Amino acid sequence: MLALDGKAQDLLFREAHTAAGFTSDAVSDEQIAEIWDLIRWAPTGGNASPGRLLIVRSPDARERLVAHMGESNRAKTLAAPLTVVLAADTRYHELWPNISPGRSQAAARLEDDQDARERLAMLSGTLVAAYFLIGVRAAGLAAGPMGGFSRAGVDGEFFPDGRWRSILIVNVGMPADDGHSERQGRLEFSDVARVV
Amino acid sequence: MLALDGKAQDLLFREAHTAAGFTSDAVSDEQIAEIWDLIRWAPTGGNASPGRLLIVRSPDARERLVAHMGESNRAKTLAAPLTVVLAADTRYHELWPNISPGRSQAAARLEDDQDARERLAMLSGTLVAAYFLIGVRAAGLAAGPMGGFSRAGVDGEFFPDGRWRSILIVNVGMPADDGHSERQGRLEFSDVARVV
Repeated sequence: MLALDGKAQDLLFREAHTAAGFTSDAVSDEQIAEIWDLIRWAPTGGNASPGRLLIVRSPDARERLVAHMGESNRAKTLAAPLTVVLAADTRYHELWPNISPGRSQAAARLEDDQDARERLAMLSGTLVAAYFLIGVRAAGLAAGPMGGFSRAGVDGEFFPDGRWRSILIVNVGMPADDGHSERQGRLEFSDVARVV
Repeated sequence: MLALDGKAQDLLFREAHTAAGFTSDAVSDEQIAEIWDLIRWAPTGGNASPGRLLIVRSPDARERLVAHMGESNRAKTLAAPLTVVLAADTRYHELWPNISPGRSQAAARLEDDQDARERLAMLSGTLVAAYFLIGVRAAGLAAGPMGGFSRAGVDGEFFPDGRWRSILIVNVGMPADDGHSERQGRLEFSDVARVV
C-alpha cells in the first residue's frame, strides 16, 4: 500500500543496519553536503532550522572526541571513515535572514525567551539528527549512531562558546561485511499504538 | 550521487510539504500500522524502542486534544482526517522481552536509573517522531507536525499514569491542493557544517 517503492523501503529501513565496522572507503565532505541538500527539506518547528553538523575528520579531532565517549564507542569511532556530531544551534534565529526574510519580530521574541528557544533547538535538532540517519542510508552509506558520550564534555571541547549543543554522534561509511550485529526484534503496532 | 532514486527523494524530501489542509479522504488505522511496520526498523538507542503512537480519531478525543493546543493549531487539527500524538514510553524496558530476550540485566539497571531511562526515552522517542514524519510521506500522505501545545496538559489528559510523554502532534491525510504555504528557504551546507 505504501507509495514508496520496495527498493527504497529496503534501502532506508528494512535492509539497513546500524553499522559498527566499515570498509576503508573514504567519505568526503561532498557526500555529507549531498546528504544535507536532501534532508534539509524535512520539517523543523516553524522552519527554525537549528540542525548543525560537526564533521570530525582529523586524527587530532577524533582523539579529542573519543576522550568524551563511552569506552565501548571509542575503538569503532577511531576506526570509522568519518564521524559526525549532530548538534543544535541554540541561536538558530540569527540565521533566519538567510532563509526566511520578514521573521525579525519572531526572532526578537525568541532572543528574549531563552528557554523556549533552547527547547525548540533541542527538539527540532533531534528531528534533524534522525533525518540525517535516513539521509546517510539514502546516500548508500551506513550510519552508526551513538548516544553514549558526555554531552558536557563534547560541548566543552568543540563548542566552548555554548552556542551549539551535541545531540548524537554518528559514524558514517560503507559497511563492512561483518560490520553489524544480528538484527534485533522490533515492537508490533499493537504494542505501540492506542486509538482514542 | 545518492543511492536513493530521484522519485523517492522527491516523495520523502524535495516535493513533500508540511500540510495544514487536507482532503476529506479518511486515514485508516491500517495505514498507520503500515507506516509503523516500515519505520520500526530505524534505529533507537540500544534498540530501546520507546516510540509510541496515540491515534486521535473520535470527535470527543479531538476536542480534548485541541483544548491543550495553541490557538493557531486548533481549527486545522479538528478538520484533519486523523491526528497522531507521537510519544515516548518512559518504561520502555518493560517491553524488551517482546523484542530482545536476554536483556534483563540492562533492563534492571534502567529500572533503577530513572533519569537515564527518561533521557533515552525522550531522545530516541524524538528520533521515532522524525521517522514517523518520513513514514507518512512514504505512505503517500502528508504530515502536519505541530509543537505548539502544552505537554503537561496533553500528558495529563491522555497519559494520566505518567508513563507516556508527548513529543509532537501530527495531522495526517491527503494534502488539499491549497493545503500548504509557500516553501520557505533552507540553510546551505556551508551555514550548518564545520569540519575539524
